[in-house]
Amino acid sequence: MTDAYARAGVDIDAGNAAVQRYRDLTSAWTHPDQLGSLGGFSGLFRLPGDPKRALVGSTDGVGTKILIAAALRRYDTVGADLVNHCVNDILVMNADPLFFLDYLAVGKLDPDVAAAIVAGVHRACRANGCALLGGETAEMPGVYTPDHFDLAGTIVGIADLDAVPDPNRVVSGDAIVGLPAVGLHTNGYTLARALIAEDEYGAAFGDATFADALLAPHPSYLDAVRAIRAVADVKSMAHITGGGLIDNVPRTLTDGVAAVLEQARWDVPPLMRELATRGDLAHEERYRTFNMGIGYTLVVPITDVTAALAAAPGARVVGFVQPRRDGEPRVIVRPARSA
Amino acid sequence: MTDAYARAGVDIDAGNAAVQRYRDLTSAWTHPDQLGSLGGFSGLFRLPGDPKRALVGSTDGVGTKILIAAALRRYDTVGADLVNHCVNDILVMNADPLFFLDYLAVGKLDPDVAAAIVAGVHRACRANGCALLGGETAEMPGVYTPDHFDLAGTIVGIADLDAVPDPNRVVSGDAIVGLPAVGLHTNGYTLARALIAEDEYGAAFGDATFADALLAPHPSYLDAVRAIRAVADVKSMAHITGGGLIDNVPRTLTDGVAAVLEQARWDVPPLMRELATRGDLAHEERYRTFNMGIGYTLVVPITDVTAALAAAPGARVVGFVQPRRDGEPRVIVRPARSA
Repeated sequence: MTDAYARAGVDIDAGNAAVQRYRDLTSAWTHPDQLGSLGGFSGLFRLPGDPKRALVGSTDGVGTKILIAAALRRYDTVGADLVNHCVNDILVMNADPLFFLDYLAVGKLDPDVAAAIVAGVHRACRANGCALLGGETAEMPGVYTPDHFDLAGTIVGIADLDAVPDPNRVVSGDAIVGLPAVGLHTNGYTLARALIAEDEYGAAFGDATFADALLAPHPSYLDAVRAIRAVADVKSMAHITGGGLIDNVPRTLTDGVAAVLEQARWDVPPLMRELATRGDLAHEERYRTFNMGIGYTLVVPITDVTAALAAAPGARVVGFVQPRRDGEPRVIVRPARSA
Repeated sequence: MTDAYARAGVDIDAGNAAVQRYRDLTSAWTHPDQLGSLGGFSGLFRLPGDPKRALVGSTDGVGTKILIAAALRRYDTVGADLVNHCVNDILVMNADPLFFLDYLAVGKLDPDVAAAIVAGVHRACRANGCALLGGETAEMPGVYTPDHFDLAGTIVGIADLDAVPDPNRVVSGDAIVGLPAVGLHTNGYTLARALIAEDEYGAAFGDATFADALLAPHPSYLDAVRAIRAVADVKSMAHITGGGLIDNVPRTLTDGVAAVLEQARWDVPPLMRELATRGDLAHEERYRTFNMGIGYTLVVPITDVTAALAAAPGARVVGFVQPRRDGEPRVIVRPARSA
């Protein structure tokens, strides 16, 4: 699986192997105030002086979406991609953002470009009520070519320990609510770049261009999730990032259940349909490489569905939880039937 | 000034221009719980629930030292360089480390290489009593060539607000105590790489090789500074990073005073003497590009000097504070007289 992605240069198995090696390291020693573990969406650390709360930290990058931004010289959107990605990563722990720090590395430092990128970071921090506490801009000729850069960031938030979602509460019959994605977010770009050539970026696609579709901003789900939590019992949540629905939804389930997602319940965005066709991607490959239109999922009791959907525009039921026997898949995506 | 460094591809003026642009952004909006400002060693954020303490965050990278590590395929030291650099960056605020997150980006992911790098991060975190809370490993073909990588990290610590050092307490007559550097730490590598060719790395230099001298680990000053603080009134501190003694020591002073550093009081390490000779670096250029043998400085009253030096092995007085008139330099480095 993910053959096309591997051919494009991203080895998901190597990534999983690296994560396993990191887990071995941390099993040898972890700090006594550390509550999470490496490899999850984010790590937890006891808040000094308050046994009921924890700091939640997460680091991420924008991935190869930056290569498209660099090729198009559009520097104002990747900052929001980065911040919103990080906000969502700690949101699955019910954490409220406190502060953010960015890391911008360039081959040759152009203050105007750097300022445009960091202005996007700052704007998204402000929109999420999150301090931009600092950052580092590194000029590294030899690591990056003059027009290339990388952008990563770290968010720290705070969570009530008794409000951290618990997948063990998920039972058969619960509903899976999905929040709509806006484009690829920050995943699958290495494959997308292999399937859409740079000289096509300016070509019309839908109402705009491939460039617009490819650089559509990664949204923050903070407001939508807060609204749903206010009216529904949210048992667990997933931010649909690398690995797609296939790899991320299982993190919201106990061993004894599986998620059934029914494609007929939501629309696959045109860009992902185009990429799936161009890459001749198998069914599972599509759902492991791209978000396929769902950026965030929440597991709620069936009785809370109506309230949850009313609270957040665009929210819809995308599937349900059913019993699972050993050896069965943890996520099943049922294709939509042809009309 | 720093002509040789600029020719090697690092534009310190562009860096300062970018920092000024970031300051303009944050002057338009900062989070109400934010106490620091961008461009300092690190930012402060009010600890939730405790008005007397603050979280202190800092992000940094290893810089182009990673190109030497990659060329030599020595992956076990850059992790400690990164962590210790970050520990020292928040130590100047008297912050104790809480947790750390790393960002590793590679062109092609080799789990063994990634594990060796992160093992170094983990080891240094443990040595500093700092949790390794998480991290991100990104495989980004096209941004990085297969053998290249970048490594950055973010540290979060905690400080008592009434113990944050205050440069306004510094007066004429105070002593400047220096802690010895171990090699270049993480600064000046772009110039060092321009002056020492890759095929020389294996050549003998001093008791070892250029490779050993170039990859000498960036030390943590946590234990030394704690020991000095226990016996002396430490008014302010600087971690000697990019910009060297010339740019970093002024951050520990008030406007009305200057630091006089006397080179005769410490030895310049052989590697920096070699680089200064090869690059024909002017006096100030040496002290702005490299640490020149002093990795960390503390301003203490002259009456506390004896106790401070006894508390930390290798600590020595490197200079003193004197009155300064408008327009005069904030740091004067007096060369050692020839014998």
